[in-house]
This record gives sequence, C-alpha cells and structure tokens, in this order.
Amino acid sequence: MTLPSVQPSAAPPASLELPGHRLLLGTAEPMPLDNGGTLGPFHLAYQTYGTLNADRSNAVLVCHALTGDQYVAERHPITGKPGWWELMVGPGRPIDTDRYFVICSNVIGGCMGSEGPKETDPATGRPWGLSFPVVTIADMVRAQKLLIDHLGIDRLFCVIGGSMGGMQVLEWAATYPERVFAAVPIATAARHSAQNIAFHEVGRQSIMADPDWHGGDYLNRGTRPKRGLAVARMAAHITYLSEPALHRKFGRNLQDRSRISFGFDADFQVESYLRHQGISFVERFDANSYLYITRAMDYFDLAAEHGGVLANAFRTPGPKGGTATPVRFCLVSFSSDWLFPTCESRAVVHALNAVAANVSFVEIESDKGHDAFLLDEPEFYQVVRGFLEGCAEHRGLPRTGS
Amino acid sequence: MTLPSVQPSAAPPASLELPGHRLLLGTAEPMPLDNGGTLGPFHLAYQTYGTLNADRSNAVLVCHALTGDQYVAERHPITGKPGWWELMVGPGRPIDTDRYFVICSNVIGGCMGSEGPKETDPATGRPWGLSFPVVTIADMVRAQKLLIDHLGIDRLFCVIGGSMGGMQVLEWAATYPERVFAAVPIATAARHSAQNIAFHEVGRQSIMADPDWHGGDYLNRGTRPKRGLAVARMAAHITYLSEPALHRKFGRNLQDRSRISFGFDADFQVESYLRHQGISFVERFDANSYLYITRAMDYFDLAAEHGGVLANAFRTPGPKGGTATPVRFCLVSFSSDWLFPTCESRAVVHALNAVAANVSFVEIESDKGHDAFLLDEPEFYQVVRGFLEGCAEHRGLPRTGS
Repeated sequence: MTLPSVQPSAAPPASLELPGHRLLLGTAEPMPLDNGGTLGPFHLAYQTYGTLNADRSNAVLVCHALTGDQYVAERHPITGKPGWWELMVGPGRPIDTDRYFVICSNVIGGCMGSEGPKETDPATGRPWGLSFPVVTIADMVRAQKLLIDHLGIDRLFCVIGGSMGGMQVLEWAATYPERVFAAVPIATAARHSAQNIAFHEVGRQSIMADPDWHGGDYLNRGTRPKRGLAVARMAAHITYLSEPALHRKFGRNLQDRSRISFGFDADFQVESYLRHQGISFVERFDANSYLYITRAMDYFDLAAEHGGVLANAFRTPGPKGGTATPVRFCLVSFSSDWLFPTCESRAVVHALNAVAANVSFVEIESDKGHDAFLLDEPEFYQVVRGFLEGCAEHRGLPRTGS
Repeated sequence: MTLPSVQPSAAPPASLELPGHRLLLGTAEPMPLDNGGTLGPFHLAYQTYGTLNADRSNAVLVCHALTGDQYVAERHPITGKPGWWELMVGPGRPIDTDRYFVICSNVIGGCMGSEGPKETDPATGRPWGLSFPVVTIADMVRAQKLLIDHLGIDRLFCVIGGSMGGMQVLEWAATYPERVFAAVPIATAARHSAQNIAFHEVGRQSIMADPDWHGGDYLNRGTRPKRGLAVARMAAHITYLSEPALHRKFGRNLQDRSRISFGFDADFQVESYLRHQGISFVERFDANSYLYITRAMDYFDLAAEHGGVLANAFRTPGPKGGTATPVRFCLVSFSSDWLFPTCESRAVVHALNAVAANVSFVEIESDKGHDAFLLDEPEFYQVVRGFLEGCAEHRGLPRTGS
C-alpha cells in the first residue's frame, strides 16, 4: 500500500565503479569556497563527447540540473536509460558532437563521482556526510573552471544548461566572461524565488524527518533515508510538470481497475506515476546530495553577488558605466513553466539590455512545464541549433569539428 | 536543525472534552455510504451561532475545508486562535448571526468530534484507524443532512463553503435541491484535478512513510506520525498561497541573521514560516483523518455521479430536458488561486447556465492564492453580503433573525 514496500536492490554504486573520467583537482592548493573555507584535493567526475579541435575553440560545457549528472548523451550507468539530453547532444543534434567537443561534469555536492557528501573525507576516511561544506552555484562553477583549465581550454565556445544548469551558465558568464563565447541559460532565474525555496525546504524536511537519515550519518549506519527521499522527489516532480500536462497525460484516469477502491492504494494513474518517480529516484540519488544541491539553488542570487544590481553582473567596472559583457546570450523559457516562469528569464534579459549586451530571448509555447527543456520540443531545439550555428560562424568554427 | 525537535505537548484532546454539540446519528438505521457499506450509529459534532427563527427559514450551513472544523466563529479549543471564518460569520458580518442561524459540523472522517479514524469503533472498543470506511464528499453531506433533519429544518436558507467546503455545497445543491434555497461554492471545483490528486498523494505518502504511522494503528501503539504529517502540511500549505503572496510576504528575506549560514537551518523566513505551519498543524490534527479527507476530495467528481454530464447534476429529469435546479447560486473564485483556478468555477457556471439556473459568478482580484477565502478580502465579503441580502429578500426573511 505504501512506500515502505520500496526496497531498492542496493545503494548507488561506489564512484570508482562509474564509467568516465574522474579528476583530482585542487592538489597544488585547495579551492576557495563561498563559505570562507576551502576544498581540496577533491574529485570531479566528467564525461566528454566529440573531439576537441586543434585550437581548442569548439568546447561546449553542458551544466546539469538538480538531479542530473554527467551522462548527457549515453546510457546511464545505474538506470540503463538514455542520456538525459540525447535529444540535444549527439551527432547531428543541435549540440552536434561531430562539430563540438562537449564536456559535462557532475557538480560538487553531487553523487555521481564528484566530491560530495557520499564520498570519503580524506581527513577521516569516512563518508563526508554533513561535514561536507555547504557549497554554492559559484563553488560548482569554480570547480568546473579548474576542469576547463586542466583541459587547456582558454575559452569555452558555449556554456549551456537548464534550471540549475542555467544558474551555472549565468554564474559562468558573470564570473569568467573572458572564458565564455556564448551562453544559453534555459528555464532558469538569476535568483531562487520564495516559492521555490519553500518547495525545496519541504523536500529537505522530508529527508531529515526520515529516521534512517540519522542526522546525515546514514552511510556509517548502514541505512539510507529512502522513504523521505522518495517523498521529496514526488513533491518536486509535480513542480516540474504543469497542470495541463498532468491533465492531458492522466486526467482522473483510474489505474488497472474500472472503479475506485475506497482505499489508499494508487487508484489514479497519476498516483502510480508519482510513486514510481519516487521509488526509481532513490535507486540513483543520494539523500544528502539532495540537501546540498537544493541548498545551493536556494542560495543563488546573482544580483546580491553584485551589489544588489543584476546588470552589474554583466559589466566590468569602468568609465561611462563600464564595459558590457562580451558574452553572446540566448535565453529560453517555456510558457507553462511555473517553477521558473518566463518573467524570471525576462528579468535577466532586462539586465543584459541595460548593459547593451548581445542577447536574444525566446519563450517557447509548450504545455509541458519546467521539464520541457528535457523533452521533445522541436521549436526549442531549432532555436538552440540556430543560435549555435550563428555563434560558430562568428567564432570562425569550421563545419566539422576536428 | 530539523523537525525531530518537534515535540508537541500532547495529542489533540479526546472528543468528549471538546466544547459544543455532539449528536449520535444513524441510531434507528445506519447511514448508507458510497462504498456500499453503512455507518452507524455515529457521532456528528457541530456548533451553532445565532438563533433559529420560528419558521426555521434562516439556517445557514457552513461547510468547512480539508483542515477546518466546526469552530467557525469562536476561539479554537486547541489552538486558542480566533475561529477560522470570523471575518465572514458573526454579528454584523456578511453571514450575520443577528439575522441567520449558522450551523457548522465537523465532517465525518474528521478529527474534531465527528466519527472518524481517531474515534472509538463501537464494535471493537478501539480506535477505528484504517478500519474506518473511506468516505466521500457525498457521505459527508449525507451526514449533514441527517443533522439538518434532526434540527427540524426543512430547507436551508444557504449552504456555503470554500475549497472542500465548496465541494460539499455543490453536492448539497445537486442531491437535495429542494432542501437548499441558496448555495455559495467558493474557490472550488466540480472535480479534483490530476495535479491536486498528485499533491494529496504526496501528503499521504509522507504520512504513511513515517514509521510512527504503524499502518494507521499508531493510536494503539502510543505514537503519532508527527513528522510525516508536518511535511504533508508544509507541502500543502505552499499550494494554498501564491508566488506573488510569498514574494511579498517573505521574498528572500533572511531569518534573524544578516547573512546565510551555509547550513540546513532555516536561513530564509519562508523556511521558518513553513516549519511553523507544519509543527502547529500536528498539534491539532489527526494523521489518519488527513488521509481520509484528502481521499474524499480526490474522489469527488460531480459529473461522474450524474452520467458524466455536469449539467445533469443541476436538473431533475423530465420532458424538454428536465427542470432546472431551484437553487440560487453565487460562485466565487480568486484570480491567483492555482489550486482551484477560476476555470474550475467557470465550468460549474457553464453547467448551471446550460440548465438555465439562477447563477451569479464573481472572480475576485487577489494575489493571496487559494487561502484568500479565509483572509481579509473586502470585495469578497461584499459579494457574499450582497448575495445573501438579495436572497433573504426573496425568501422573505425579516431583517432580524428571531
């Protein structure tokens, strides 16, 4: 009847068993963090697709969202499902791996091989748990920049991502404008709204209310707060969709029976669907990582990082109001996204206009809600393809990548 | 740091200790239920305000919402707070207790004295728990009708309520049209949407995932699933508000400190507010009741009860398409209510128009979300006052009640 019947076969595999690259960074000196401390040496796990060209000018950094990871365009090592952005990244896709060299790293604080609460604290030899520092979007980007340095890339051709990925894109453009040619922040915001903080807090409280959480020390206790994490995912998942999409997909359709059961089983298809979302999520995600990454999103406030004026994030100080960012922007929002509604993208566009930056902005008509950026939305892919092709021409990238 | 610090002093008081009336119904014969079974004898707890006039024509039945109760216009016996609708009900208020006799009963399935999972099953002498039958909105209304019979009221002057209360209003008008003079369904719908079922399912899963729930048998185990219920309330509470209201009230304001803590304490005011909502709720509400009442809302589908055509709910069969309901309707919605958006009320209005019923409809401009019907919205109170005064004139009610 209830989630207690959820018994995922096992915890996600140890990071050493995951396919792909895993780099030790911050070895010479630890990386500074926004909380005033440092991190290092630390691991960053990443994947690449395509080939870096001779002058290293065709690199595209993809930034993943809250529960995403580095497996952008290949089978996921745990779920066995296609990569989360195979519609966007691959041969002939808008981010064409025959032309571009695509990099995606798991964020720090994450649970797919990058340093995070699930990993081993070298100082103690035990899982970090809550002793892992609370990191920010800027910290995540700082780690990615070390990776880009390591790969010898002076300037990324493009940084692109949706939702929390879009926050990283904005942070990249604001902090390292000389290292970014083009930026595509999708379905995102320059700061997390009160409502979004509230939804995140519900998810965190659900995890922390699970007795198996053990104050974050569950890995040392041989447990995992599966039920709390599943409920957190269920609540969040509703916010990724839209009422019209839920109505179209499920309506009030009943599950495997002709009439209601007068009980608490999943009578409605939307209930089974949600339960499945919760159950499958705990098989691949770490509960403490969920706390850390939601917190990083809550803390994100790009204007606050620049004296309270968002436009200041996109100009370097100087006479006559400073110099506008050299980065070319293309912002995308989706009409039915109520988690990161269009007005949030528009606020960024206004700030970019205020410094006369190079910016285009498209709101895609879609009833699929926030998740639209992960789904089949032809107009969206056409917009990204067109923008990248235009930028590639400006950048002088040849038609083929290597 | 987390909800584990929540230790409400005690469980809600036993029903016998609650002030007000408590009636034993279904003594001659048990009440039939939609699930095919029966209930009875069973208790119904209720409150009244004002005086019933000589010809018993001035009775207003107020129907409460999911977590409401019969304490409409007096201090709540557990929380000590004002009645939940004191802005609406009282001397000189729109539902003027100097003129009308106001009745409100706790719904069956509830936890404030009416028969529900917290009460004692007479067959076993132990709390019902999950052996209490799963009831519907129609069952709740059937029990209220027995109360109205008991009070010797042939025809209610008005049935009024918001949210789930509005569902009961619609059910009353559809099932007992000859017993209702006027009906005011507020911020409600003729059926629960897929998104709303989804949010309810999250709340139920949160409760059922709490080990202290014990398969619903917690009262016999001396525990209460406080954490699960608190998280359920937090998630639900967000849906009662609106993004603009949350932004206006809290924005990204920090709680009792000048900067973020880089931790999982409640940094933001909206987080403390939500935690408080969760904590205070468990002091007054029963977790199993939460399961039952949310389920009743999920099951509500007035058109389905009438051959799939909503208009059929409002006409009696007969030649030339039958006879329109004699009930006078006033529907109210709020512009920022995304839980029961205006289109839901409009669907009811269309059905009423299709039978040429007497209906008026007002959408109130408000940024306060679904909870607006409980808050200070002068235009809303003006609409209800005006509608009731017009109806009172038609009904021939004198200016003073008794």
